[in-house]
Amino acid sequence: MKFSEVVQRLGVPVDRTSLSLESAHDPEMVGVAAVDEATSGQLSYIDGAKFAAQIKTTQAIALILPRSQDLQAAATERSIAWIETAEPRLMFAQAIALFYQAFQPDPEIHPTAVIHPTAKIGTEVAIGAHVVIQANVTVGNQVCIHPNVVIYPDARIGDRVVLHANCTIHERTRLGTDCVIQPGAVIGAEGFGFVPTAQGWYKMQQSGCVVLEDGVEVGCNSTIDRPAVGETRIAQQTKLDNLVHIGHGAQIGFGCAFAAQVGLAGGVEVGNRVILAGQVGVANDAKIGDGAIASSKTGVHGTVNPGQVVSGYPCVDHKIYLKSSAIYSRLPDMYQTLKQLQKRVEELENQGLERAE
Amino acid sequence: MKFSEVVQRLGVPVDRTSLSLESAHDPEMVGVAAVDEATSGQLSYIDGAKFAAQIKTTQAIALILPRSQDLQAAATERSIAWIETAEPRLMFAQAIALFYQAFQPDPEIHPTAVIHPTAKIGTEVAIGAHVVIQANVTVGNQVCIHPNVVIYPDARIGDRVVLHANCTIHERTRLGTDCVIQPGAVIGAEGFGFVPTAQGWYKMQQSGCVVLEDGVEVGCNSTIDRPAVGETRIAQQTKLDNLVHIGHGAQIGFGCAFAAQVGLAGGVEVGNRVILAGQVGVANDAKIGDGAIASSKTGVHGTVNPGQVVSGYPCVDHKIYLKSSAIYSRLPDMYQTLKQLQKRVEELENQGLERAE
Amino acid sequence: MKFSEVVQRLGVPVDRTSLSLESAHDPEMVGVAAVDEATSGQLSYIDGAKFAAQIKTTQAIALILPRSQDLQAAATERSIAWIETAEPRLMFAQAIALFYQAFQPDPEIHPTAVIHPTAKIGTEVAIGAHVVIQANVTVGNQVCIHPNVVIYPDARIGDRVVLHANCTIHERTRLGTDCVIQPGAVIGAEGFGFVPTAQGWYKMQQSGCVVLEDGVEVGCNSTIDRPAVGETRIAQQTKLDNLVHIGHGAQIGFGCAFAAQVGLAGGVEVGNRVILAGQVGVANDAKIGDGAIASSKTGVHGTVNPGQVVSGYPCVDHKIYLKSSAIYSRLPDMYQTLKQLQKRVEELENQGLERAE
Repeated sequence: MKFSEVVQRLGVPVDRTSLSLESAHDPEMVGVAAVDEATSGQLSYIDGAKFAAQIKTTQAIALILPRSQDLQAAATERSIAWIETAEPRLMFAQAIALFYQAFQPDPEIHPTAVIHPTAKIGTEVAIGAHVVIQANVTVGNQVCIHPNVVIYPDARIGDRVVLHANCTIHERTRLGTDCVIQPGAVIGAEGFGFVPTAQGWYKMQQSGCVVLEDGVEVGCNSTIDRPAVGETRIAQQTKLDNLVHIGHGAQIGFGCAFAAQVGLAGGVEVGNRVILAGQVGVANDAKIGDGAIASSKTGVHGTVNPGQVVSGYPCVDHKIYLKSSAIYSRLPDMYQTLKQLQKRVEELENQGLERAE
Repeated sequence: MKFSEVVQRLGVPVDRTSLSLESAHDPEMVGVAAVDEATSGQLSYIDGAKFAAQIKTTQAIALILPRSQDLQAAATERSIAWIETAEPRLMFAQAIALFYQAFQPDPEIHPTAVIHPTAKIGTEVAIGAHVVIQANVTVGNQVCIHPNVVIYPDARIGDRVVLHANCTIHERTRLGTDCVIQPGAVIGAEGFGFVPTAQGWYKMQQSGCVVLEDGVEVGCNSTIDRPAVGETRIAQQTKLDNLVHIGHGAQIGFGCAFAAQVGLAGGVEVGNRVILAGQVGVANDAKIGDGAIASSKTGVHGTVNPGQVVSGYPCVDHKIYLKSSAIYSRLPDMYQTLKQLQKRVEELENQGLERAE
Repeated sequence: MKFSEVVQRLGVPVDRTSLSLESAHDPEMVGVAAVDEATSGQLSYIDGAKFAAQIKTTQAIALILPRSQDLQAAATERSIAWIETAEPRLMFAQAIALFYQAFQPDPEIHPTAVIHPTAKIGTEVAIGAHVVIQANVTVGNQVCIHPNVVIYPDARIGDRVVLHANCTIHERTRLGTDCVIQPGAVIGAEGFGFVPTAQGWYKMQQSGCVVLEDGVEVGCNSTIDRPAVGETRIAQQTKLDNLVHIGHGAQIGFGCAFAAQVGLAGGVEVGNRVILAGQVGVANDAKIGDGAIASSKTGVHGTVNPGQVVSGYPCVDHKIYLKSSAIYSRLPDMYQTLKQLQKRVEELENQGLERAE
């Protein structure tokens, strides 16, 4: 693909590219790569000062650059074609999609799939080998179900959903349109509901269900449990990374992103556009407000206010955490200083006493 | 189902219900729900003061209540039928089971299941599509094996066990009766046994096995490893949530509950009725006594005494943890105060010196 | 197997065993066991002082011992045959392999496996029931693929690789020779790449791939993601335990060992022979030098130097961590002491003031 075609497909005005220069050339692009790994013919990007030095060494033949005359001049000097944009990383993501599409099986049903006669299957659906679809399941149009997926009875799968290999969708689960479930994820299994009694644990039947709204994505081997009654619900466009656990009855807003190994206890309430970094844990009394952020490994209890950034275990405001954790390694010194001060004050007190006598 | 039938099935004496009142009515119940989500015709429960206010707004037509004349009067006033019990949550769990049963496939063997001729299969067993059962496996009576489960050779599966979709049971694993293994769980895989040598890691064959006693439940995508020699053993009625890891050779008592993402290193010893909250980690030298509790994210090293409650990383007694963690966010202030005190004491000492001269 | 045969197969000179003694006997060995669990006829080992007392009570008929005349004399006294070695645990691992081999299916292709006609399958390959191998996959010689494994298109599987049940290998993944992938692991799925925009998350296609070099092992239900561009690479002989997450684009050296539930964010760089204990988290800016160690639950940010041992969250040098965490539980006392000191100093200052007046 010619550079000029990339520019056109990305919808960038020519005067924001090196094509507007007198020295303009229009190289052939063969793919995309990171700026420090690009080889001849590849398109890359530079996003901010951190990578700016690499403009002098990169082998990329074209670059997506931020709005910086210096960077553009440096690229031009090395005969690197460039595109200017306010959001280089976003445009690079769009550029990747010009050169690459993930594996998409043909829309056909493999003869080894076992589909219950009461299941309703939409049009243009791909169902892979050894898939099992139980009674009364509804599958929308243009859905892609990869091999060895199991769908329990009464589940509803929205249009254009992708279910990757070996994942499990439990009874009554409802997936909106355009959801992606990565391999091994388990949606809608029984919540961890055991009531303590004198005779031991009494198992509470989990009669509720899991609802994932449109555009939710769930990472590999993540687990989202259904509750005893009601719903576990994740609102639209929320994205979960791998090995995430969502407890029974949790209510999660739209546009959130939870990184790998995050765990939410049952009944947690999370607002919209909340970001939880890796290995964050949220206890079962917690309410997290819209737009809040928890940094990695944070242990969230109680209430996090909208827009608040929290860190630490137990979590505190991120600014306090930074200060307190910086002092943590000085604790032994503080302890010694404190002991010495005690002695010195005692001595001063004794001197005062002597003087008073 | 009439309210009176619910009362009867739950075994509650009529004089502990609103049926004993003059104003008694006997509404039709159509299901169960949380008190703040119940719609007309649903049964719900109130467990303690936290939810008491909702008695004024709930749409539930009947409630399971604690022993409180105030709550009962409030329910009666709103024409809500009620049942009194010392343990509302437990009775609600029993009530759910009146209205709901989890999906239970018919006891038949799907023709696509691949079962080794040497395997012994009990009576009334359900074996789903694409299940694989290897040589010399023994499966008890009334066992339910959901689709795409794989059982390696020589495993023994007790009566009434449920193996959910896509889970894997390794060679020589022994499951007692009434165990439930949720989807994607892996029981009895090789422990992480590598001996460091000058030439790199030497792989220790894991010749032992995993034993789960009667009534053990294992959550989605949890993993329980077998040891090099001997057994990894989990005693009866212990319940594990999702994404839990149990290392090779761990010994776990009966009636424990481990929440999601708990991890136990190899060789750990855990007593009976121990509760580990979410994301707790237990190091490989640890011994945890009967009835101990570790709060979420606790890092357990060394010995935890029977009945002790521990928190923090590294763990300390929970009361100490509460005090210390409360002070954590004041560390910057403490540090400043300490520095100032040092100066002030120095000044006092200098004044004393001057006076002494 | 006779003890003398075990000695010979392990390659130990007879004069380093009890066979060199006058009182020598040559018992029959029936298996291996831990020293405190061994029954008659079993071989065990003692590794260091911690277990030395058990030499007086063990029922083992032979022991692998460290170079200690005392231990050897104690064994001889109880008529226990013994082998002397500098590394008892390593030799015990070698001894296990004399008595035990993990389940190895016959090299045949099960008729229910679905193999794309363009896939290239090597010689002496075992492919279990319900395996799915997509287009253009290459499988080396003597590979063992257990039931219900799914391999996406264009993956390359090296010689002697073992893929355990229910694991998923994504498109373009490259596995070197002798890799072992435990059940449920997912290799090469889409990295968690979403670019924030005013309209919500924009999904970045993940066009890269995962490369595992020779001898890499991946634990049950672990997940290794592919990046947007380039590779996620794990160098040879690195071993991952269960439920480990490796983010997109991470670069990991050779000979590392990561314990269960470790999580690495995208783009992390890890050197050679690095050891990460259980539940360690590594943030996306981190670089960990060769031979570094992080103790369990450590939260790694920034740079860890070669050979450094770090602990804590956020991580600090292990020695500092030990001191600081020891003081953590004294924080309430320190706080009280500090408050009292403040008062006492104030009083002293007031006295000085009075005296000065």
